[in-house]
Amino acid sequence: MTRQGPNIRVSQVGEWADGRFARKQDYLATEEPLEIRVGDEPLSVTMRTPGEDLELTAGFLLTEGLIERREQIVVMEASSESDPVRAGNVVHVQLTPDALSNGEKLRRNFFAASSCGICGKASIDSVRSRALRAPNPDFRVDPEVLISLPAALMTSQAVFGRTGGLHAAALFSDSGQLLALREDIGRHNAVDKIAGWALRENRIPLANEILLVSGRGGFEIAQKSIVVGVPVLASVSAPSSLAVQLAREMSLTLIGFLRGRRFVIYAGEERIGKAGPA
Amino acid sequence: MTRQGPNIRVSQVGEWADGRFARKQDYLATEEPLEIRVGDEPLSVTMRTPGEDLELTAGFLLTEGLIERREQIVVMEASSESDPVRAGNVVHVQLTPDALSNGEKLRRNFFAASSCGICGKASIDSVRSRALRAPNPDFRVDPEVLISLPAALMTSQAVFGRTGGLHAAALFSDSGQLLALREDIGRHNAVDKIAGWALRENRIPLANEILLVSGRGGFEIAQKSIVVGVPVLASVSAPSSLAVQLAREMSLTLIGFLRGRRFVIYAGEERIGKAGPA
Repeated sequence: MTRQGPNIRVSQVGEWADGRFARKQDYLATEEPLEIRVGDEPLSVTMRTPGEDLELTAGFLLTEGLIERREQIVVMEASSESDPVRAGNVVHVQLTPDALSNGEKLRRNFFAASSCGICGKASIDSVRSRALRAPNPDFRVDPEVLISLPAALMTSQAVFGRTGGLHAAALFSDSGQLLALREDIGRHNAVDKIAGWALRENRIPLANEILLVSGRGGFEIAQKSIVVGVPVLASVSAPSSLAVQLAREMSLTLIGFLRGRRFVIYAGEERIGKAGPA
Repeated sequence: MTRQGPNIRVSQVGEWADGRFARKQDYLATEEPLEIRVGDEPLSVTMRTPGEDLELTAGFLLTEGLIERREQIVVMEASSESDPVRAGNVVHVQLTPDALSNGEKLRRNFFAASSCGICGKASIDSVRSRALRAPNPDFRVDPEVLISLPAALMTSQAVFGRTGGLHAAALFSDSGQLLALREDIGRHNAVDKIAGWALRENRIPLANEILLVSGRGGFEIAQKSIVVGVPVLASVSAPSSLAVQLAREMSLTLIGFLRGRRFVIYAGEERIGKAGPA
């Protein structure tokens, strides 16, 4: 396998097609482990697509509740380890003392960090205990803007020569302008990269933005959206039952099946502009 | 939201379609947390689709390396807790002393349990340290059998009234007979349910079976496949770079893009029967 940019590797493979076997080159989405270390402690290891590791780290720390402000990150740097597996796959972080850095919190938050998920109750509670408000109640989105977003995402992926085979998360203004687009082999990572970008740009909370994700809108995607303050989470696919429950409890507008000139509103329909219920 | 079987919930939603707003009922895939407790310690919490929790637990313990044989599970039972969030969402397990139940192992394995993934090196090492052999080198699969599997999976999903909106994992014999089909909102969970079914049926290692997964063949799916001993892992989608690397190192046959009369062989092409390279 040869490396071709951080997101893509080229590999020799075999292809069977209707009884005929051939060798060819194929492109593989890069998956490598990223270890985040806080102080001297490993916090988490995430399978991710390399390339935006500091954004991913910052976003992960934010959406998992270890930090609330970018100033709580004192140092964040890629490790210079020479071990071939670890080289480029470790980020070291130092947090301020007021960050949630004691062992118990780390442990609790590491549990929260699993993309397997966490206990719904503990988690809904912990989102609330982070003292975050419900997303901006005054934000409104025009349905015509909403239905324009998937095409804007796809166009941008093409422009940047991205694969389209990775999960994507994109942030849009209320007028549908693309603000940031990130891709990753992991759905949660793409959202964390957006969160990290916003944190480093000092844009948290994202009170007037729309987050579009390419995959399913599960509980943890909804949870991360609430942490960054985004009032509208949209997906081209279906949400889960627990994502809908969380969105309704926290007044997050949750949109699914955003395809063509149609979408389904699972929660927070008061933010849907002109075409909301009379 | 009303409950309608363990996999589906019905919810009132709004639908916007080309400027018109309507209320309708929608069906949501159920997502709830499952906490696995070993002795008095919480081991992991996984977002899952309820319904096959003991299979999921057994498979998780196996594929994450806490146990190697079903006899190491002394007790495994759903909790009778009455707390509404926890009721039905906790499984208690007691393992034999020879199971990998000390704190350090638990901790290491909890890290391994994260579907975020784990350090590739630690993980490749830990798969090997489990003293598992490479999957059955003598197994062969006929390409005509392989290409029949996706349709068999879809037919079975229809027969069982399943949603098709969940991730699926299915186990087939070398002649293409469906042996087991499991669904879950989490890709890894569907595979763990298959693993748990096989463990409880005393079928580990699965030396002559084919595992088909509906989603992407990532590193951890490949890892779990090797632990249960299955010689062929097939997916209708793409594998990741690290899944291919692991499959090649461990001699797992890894098939991707299994669609129509075509598939791509990423590793282990010696097991592809008649149509392999001359």
